[in-house]
Amino acid sequence: MHYFPYVPFLLFLMFHTDPDYSAAYVVIETDARDGLQGCGLTFTLGKGTEVVVCAVNALAHHVLQKDLRDIVGDFRGFYRQLTSDGQLRWIGPEKGVVHLATAAILNAVWDLWAKQEGKPLWKLLVDMDARTLLSCIDFRYITDVLTEEEAYGESGNGTFCFPEEQMLMHGYPAYTTSCAWLGYSDSTLKQLCAAALKDGWTRFKVKVGADLQDDIRRCRLIRDMIGPENTLMMDANQRWDVPEAVQWMSKLAEFKPLWIEEPTSPDDILGHAAISKALAPLGIGVATGEQCHNRVIFKQLLQAHALQFLQIDSCRLGSVNENLSVLLMAKKFGIPVCPHAGGVGLCELVQHLIIFDYISVSTSLQDRMCEYVDHLHEHFKYPVIIRRASYLPPKDAGYSTEMKEESVKKYQYPDGEVWKLLVLKKTER
Amino acid sequence: MHYFPYVPFLLFLMFHTDPDYSAAYVVIETDARDGLQGCGLTFTLGKGTEVVVCAVNALAHHVLQKDLRDIVGDFRGFYRQLTSDGQLRWIGPEKGVVHLATAAILNAVWDLWAKQEGKPLWKLLVDMDARTLLSCIDFRYITDVLTEEEAYGESGNGTFCFPEEQMLMHGYPAYTTSCAWLGYSDSTLKQLCAAALKDGWTRFKVKVGADLQDDIRRCRLIRDMIGPENTLMMDANQRWDVPEAVQWMSKLAEFKPLWIEEPTSPDDILGHAAISKALAPLGIGVATGEQCHNRVIFKQLLQAHALQFLQIDSCRLGSVNENLSVLLMAKKFGIPVCPHAGGVGLCELVQHLIIFDYISVSTSLQDRMCEYVDHLHEHFKYPVIIRRASYLPPKDAGYSTEMKEESVKKYQYPDGEVWKLLVLKKTER
Repeated sequence: MHYFPYVPFLLFLMFHTDPDYSAAYVVIETDARDGLQGCGLTFTLGKGTEVVVCAVNALAHHVLQKDLRDIVGDFRGFYRQLTSDGQLRWIGPEKGVVHLATAAILNAVWDLWAKQEGKPLWKLLVDMDARTLLSCIDFRYITDVLTEEEAYGESGNGTFCFPEEQMLMHGYPAYTTSCAWLGYSDSTLKQLCAAALKDGWTRFKVKVGADLQDDIRRCRLIRDMIGPENTLMMDANQRWDVPEAVQWMSKLAEFKPLWIEEPTSPDDILGHAAISKALAPLGIGVATGEQCHNRVIFKQLLQAHALQFLQIDSCRLGSVNENLSVLLMAKKFGIPVCPHAGGVGLCELVQHLIIFDYISVSTSLQDRMCEYVDHLHEHFKYPVIIRRASYLPPKDAGYSTEMKEESVKKYQYPDGEVWKLLVLKKTER
Repeated sequence: MHYFPYVPFLLFLMFHTDPDYSAAYVVIETDARDGLQGCGLTFTLGKGTEVVVCAVNALAHHVLQKDLRDIVGDFRGFYRQLTSDGQLRWIGPEKGVVHLATAAILNAVWDLWAKQEGKPLWKLLVDMDARTLLSCIDFRYITDVLTEEEAYGESGNGTFCFPEEQMLMHGYPAYTTSCAWLGYSDSTLKQLCAAALKDGWTRFKVKVGADLQDDIRRCRLIRDMIGPENTLMMDANQRWDVPEAVQWMSKLAEFKPLWIEEPTSPDDILGHAAISKALAPLGIGVATGEQCHNRVIFKQLLQAHALQFLQIDSCRLGSVNENLSVLLMAKKFGIPVCPHAGGVGLCELVQHLIIFDYISVSTSLQDRMCEYVDHLHEHFKYPVIIRRASYLPPKDAGYSTEMKEESVKKYQYPDGEVWKLLVLKKTER
């Protein structure tokens, strides 16, 4: 049971899609004879993974030669060590590249811990006693909203635990983003919608914000396809300023969206609050989170009533540790968590967090669902399982972060076959 | 006058100090026969410069092979191109490592432009007509507070320009941070204070937040040294949570600080607002900004009445372009700008911005001053000149960003003499 030394092994992958999803993939190996590896990742939209890998290398010394028991035995301390490194703090703190790197490393630690315990990550969390769970969270900068003692009181002084049967039987409800990307033709859109409806999907997200008339046409088409009883969400990917967001969404209100996602800059807490206030009479909520960079931003979004749906991200926040603090704050403010997924592996990871949230924190499915994109799962050793538009709880030990050996080999930079072909093609031109 | 192609030349420097200040230094060369180079930098606290350099390289293609006239002719467009790169945006946006890299590149562009115009940067800005000046600013995400048209109206429809004589004669008032770092002995502190008073300094900043009793002793000592008529500021470097900040500062109120700087997380707009409100009856203002990562954060700090002194940073925000937008917003809200300086070259750079602010935007010195740290100026070709505790306006063309050739050679990684010695020492151990 000696878990030192750690040996991180870094690479990045690129998949042929638009955008060119890429990922910094961290593998932690130990000298234990159990053959277990901790795998963690954070993804980018293509370029930039080399910058994240550089940051992982700058942080790696915090993990090397450490014993896993020491890390998880004082997980808050370890988290603080990574996020408050005296010198690296300047190039964050707790945001952007260094925080993405922190996420990749910590995701690998959690994967290893869960594997060592022989449990899927969600079950490791569900079974954990409240004191241990809370000891993973850095409450720094959020104690004005939630203290450790208050969170402990809320837990009923024991374990955070409620029956799991519902989850195991029906899974966690998902919604699909795959039907209505910008740029899809109307016929593609119709075709994808029809297929999704047939597969049992009832919640659909459409991208908006490039052209109002185009949005109106596409939203009408989708609403007609899915009917009034199904749920429609809209996603603007930060395209608008605050006044523009309100004007634009007023024009799309007739299609009854449940929420508008990322209407403006992810840093604009007060802007989201103004949009929320203006759109409330139209019955439209505001959702955001995939680019909210830490718990301090989420704390304020909650304090300012700036969102009605909170979208955690398993690779932007500081891994499970920071996501736990956000789940607990959302619970306190009564705001449903509807995780961001897609990218590379986000579905695989975040399903663990939201299943834990249901069983042990929110205990409700009201207004809750997890994003799903049918993309790149083939590269993962334990890919998500979707049944009747729901995530089935993973049964394999770990955080579902491990990639298939052949995918790693093929897509690794710069030696992977895919990269070599790319270089060859470029040379031939 | 052909200013293409650009050739960025990247390196980093490390100086033997604690922390080990380091800088990503960008040099832009062109094919013009004027021999001019644009020099830009952003500094770090030691580690992390390699990550920033990696990000500069990822962004460099936006500058290479471009004509300077095209860049400054559509500076807003160029700014947007750098900050909204479709793929790199994911690892920001406009924050942390990528934004520091953006600052380094744009600082080099501004230096080159000012050199080409044969003016110090502050004078280039002062002489610019309002339309041109505003065309450098990306108003994206701030139009709910300030639009281009409103800013143009405020400028009196012509140039932003007021008399410069006052500035040229007396300079811009500075304050010193060099007397009272944490860890200085009482005798060092007394000695430094006495020397500073003798040199004409009237404004002093003391670091606080590690130990309350120690703070009380040191603040009493400094206040006794400088007397009641001089100004004392305090700086906590993000050490506290919100409630703790209020409690701690209540205990230090007797020493009459003008402000408490960085009481908590730089991301916590609502936290700073709560602290401001609680400390106002004690006559203590809140100052922050050196780690506020973009104009959207500053916009909200102003909207929420979260600060009484705004501290811009010339190497964290997106260069002159983004700082201009913050100066104009601060003017609208009537909040004095008191820039952050120190680090590597911050004094050299930010003096240009604050001198422009006085001449063309705020036209007031009320409650205004610029930080000064007497440190590392010897490496700059055009170092700051301080007379009677004031910055004298630079007269040399450019942004004062250019380093001495011998310093670059000596401290460049990994070939500089200083680095070779470090490696040698490490090998000998």
